[in-house]
Amino acid sequence: MNYQNNFNPSISDTNIFNEIKKEKESIGYYNLVHQDTSSFKEYAKTVKQTNIVVIGIGGSTLGTYAIYKFLKHSKPLSKKLFFLETTDPIDILSKISKIDLEDTLFVVISKSGTTIETVSIFKYIHSLVKCDKNNTLVITENDSKLNEYAQKNDIKTFEIPKNVGGRFSVFSAVGLLPLAIVGIDIDELLLGAKVIHDSFFNKEEQYKRILKKARFFVENRSVMNINVLFSYSSRLEGFNKWYIQLWGESLGKVDVYNTRQGLTPIGIIGPIDQHSFLQLIVEGTRDKKVTVVKVNDFHNALTIPHVKLEGLEELDYIDGLEFSKLINMQADATIESINNLKDIPCDVITLDGVCESSVSSLMYEYELLTSVCAKFMYINAYDQPGVESGKIILKNKFKKK
Amino acid sequence: MNYQNNFNPSISDTNIFNEIKKEKESIGYYNLVHQDTSSFKEYAKTVKQTNIVVIGIGGSTLGTYAIYKFLKHSKPLSKKLFFLETTDPIDILSKISKIDLEDTLFVVISKSGTTIETVSIFKYIHSLVKCDKNNTLVITENDSKLNEYAQKNDIKTFEIPKNVGGRFSVFSAVGLLPLAIVGIDIDELLLGAKVIHDSFFNKEEQYKRILKKARFFVENRSVMNINVLFSYSSRLEGFNKWYIQLWGESLGKVDVYNTRQGLTPIGIIGPIDQHSFLQLIVEGTRDKKVTVVKVNDFHNALTIPHVKLEGLEELDYIDGLEFSKLINMQADATIESINNLKDIPCDVITLDGVCESSVSSLMYEYELLTSVCAKFMYINAYDQPGVESGKIILKNKFKKK
Repeated sequence: MNYQNNFNPSISDTNIFNEIKKEKESIGYYNLVHQDTSSFKEYAKTVKQTNIVVIGIGGSTLGTYAIYKFLKHSKPLSKKLFFLETTDPIDILSKISKIDLEDTLFVVISKSGTTIETVSIFKYIHSLVKCDKNNTLVITENDSKLNEYAQKNDIKTFEIPKNVGGRFSVFSAVGLLPLAIVGIDIDELLLGAKVIHDSFFNKEEQYKRILKKARFFVENRSVMNINVLFSYSSRLEGFNKWYIQLWGESLGKVDVYNTRQGLTPIGIIGPIDQHSFLQLIVEGTRDKKVTVVKVNDFHNALTIPHVKLEGLEELDYIDGLEFSKLINMQADATIESINNLKDIPCDVITLDGVCESSVSSLMYEYELLTSVCAKFMYINAYDQPGVESGKIILKNKFKKK
Repeated sequence: MNYQNNFNPSISDTNIFNEIKKEKESIGYYNLVHQDTSSFKEYAKTVKQTNIVVIGIGGSTLGTYAIYKFLKHSKPLSKKLFFLETTDPIDILSKISKIDLEDTLFVVISKSGTTIETVSIFKYIHSLVKCDKNNTLVITENDSKLNEYAQKNDIKTFEIPKNVGGRFSVFSAVGLLPLAIVGIDIDELLLGAKVIHDSFFNKEEQYKRILKKARFFVENRSVMNINVLFSYSSRLEGFNKWYIQLWGESLGKVDVYNTRQGLTPIGIIGPIDQHSFLQLIVEGTRDKKVTVVKVNDFHNALTIPHVKLEGLEELDYIDGLEFSKLINMQADATIESINNLKDIPCDVITLDGVCESSVSSLMYEYELLTSVCAKFMYINAYDQPGVESGKIILKNKFKKK
């Protein structure tokens, strides 16, 4: 009797790394760090309008919003960025009421070019203010219907490369162009991403960390199917949302053995969600891994003043403390209380500061982590076949009307 | 040989109902629907300021925010409501910069009275503008340190009853008072909650529905440990957050057999998260139950105009459609695509409209559902012992300083 198997329970790090390197030849996002950004910066200089309204949804907005939300109060920006992404009529009207549409550049972003939410909203905007080459910019694939519309109307377009998926497109024109227009340093952004890229592909620190983390996440996924990201700054709310799309849509898949896979992302904000979700982490079922994201330096000296409140003297010990110190002490106390339990996996990422390179390093690291997890799980991180059936059903509903 | 057991794998609905009725004698939230609201309405009439700033966190803000966010664009409100809840310094400064503090009523809400976030922020506000009986209102327990502060400074206070927990307090002074001040009809709110209360306690429709749903959720929790709430309106973003606290903090507990329990809440928004989380639901591991919340009537006729976009003619079939119809067609397509899979439990709640009674009915139903799930799970829905250790660690960090 002879017996052989290819169960391959423990794929070697080297195998995974070689697969990623091979994938890098065809999947575009990896190499966006090497881009020449001069055409983005040149276009940005020509924009006269004060308001920039991105019309898009999902991968066309989430990454841009994440970076904008993180940075917008940390430095004076020359323009304001808005996002129109949902078909909720009350949401559309309330957002538009705050914007001077005559002083607005509309950035219409759709990879496929026929996203129903994006086109509906653009049509509505078009009925309020004439959209033409003077106030409209299009970002799409080079052979899409939206590109055709732009060509026919002489509207400036930038391309989303075919091999860059929507949720991995933040460092393409999709994210860099609107961000450059409002005054964010996109070269610093790419530099932050490149640091992670180089460290990973040179098999340095990031390589070890990402491989170890992905392996742990995947090997324990049947027990711990939930990945909680606990971000200790309200500035990271957009990053949390971007992470949820990246993680959920990339890793929720049928694998090569036709088995359903998935790691469920949850994004929470500290200290607010200490008063909401933390109880479930601490005392609930052990189905969660926790990653805490901290900001080392908020570049902000706002301090709790020495104010005497009669009756509340017992809290006077907080007087004179910087809020940024308090929030980080709260993060540390949460981390310590979780670690004390000894049965909840927890890792901590500390960003240097509220700056371009910090957020882009974090985002590029998460893109790599997602790609590596997908390799371990034998799934394709870059498609989303599960959402097609809903689109077809919707189209049929229109035909029946 | 004789054998007996009390495994009780299937507690009868009647047993659960009787336990809830008994609990209703000591747990306060059930009976808030019978409240006399005249003192709230009278106080509201006396408020002269244009801006209302709630200083609080967790249960002190989430329910109020949920209702305000749902209703604020649906009717003209006389005042604006803001929330200061986090210790993130950039968040505090950016919010304050938008508010005229001289024309503001500060509503300080803390059940315990010594919430560190709330007191820190209040101290900071106090250093910017003198807080006294003319511009400050306190909502707290009647024997808290915050109450003592208010008494000593002759500041008006309203009480949070001892037996009403923070996350179940939206229909107490915590929620009703700020909402009454900005012009929301709090009697209509209570009426919406009372409809559900009566139907449940009279063993009518809500009784059957809630018992059936809670039983299903609990009996299948070891396989399907995640409860996704898919709300098809951006107006429900606050409700989603409130749900996450209610569900996570109430049901993430050690049960009477010393076993960890927990149902993990996730809140997503349609159609936005069709482009983010839906892929994971459809193709991922079968660990999720989905509840879709729809709004039947948005009271809004915003329509996709007949605008011709050369090249994009294939999408002309959406022209002339109301956005509210489109978003509901998108919801229906998502529901149909999930139901077609036949292995993902999915229920649908349709709100009548964007009005007080719709959102309060929904919230009261979720409070009842939470209480009933807790009974099935043999846990106490109303405490949160898991978050105490973090607070103690934080205090010790201060002592070491």
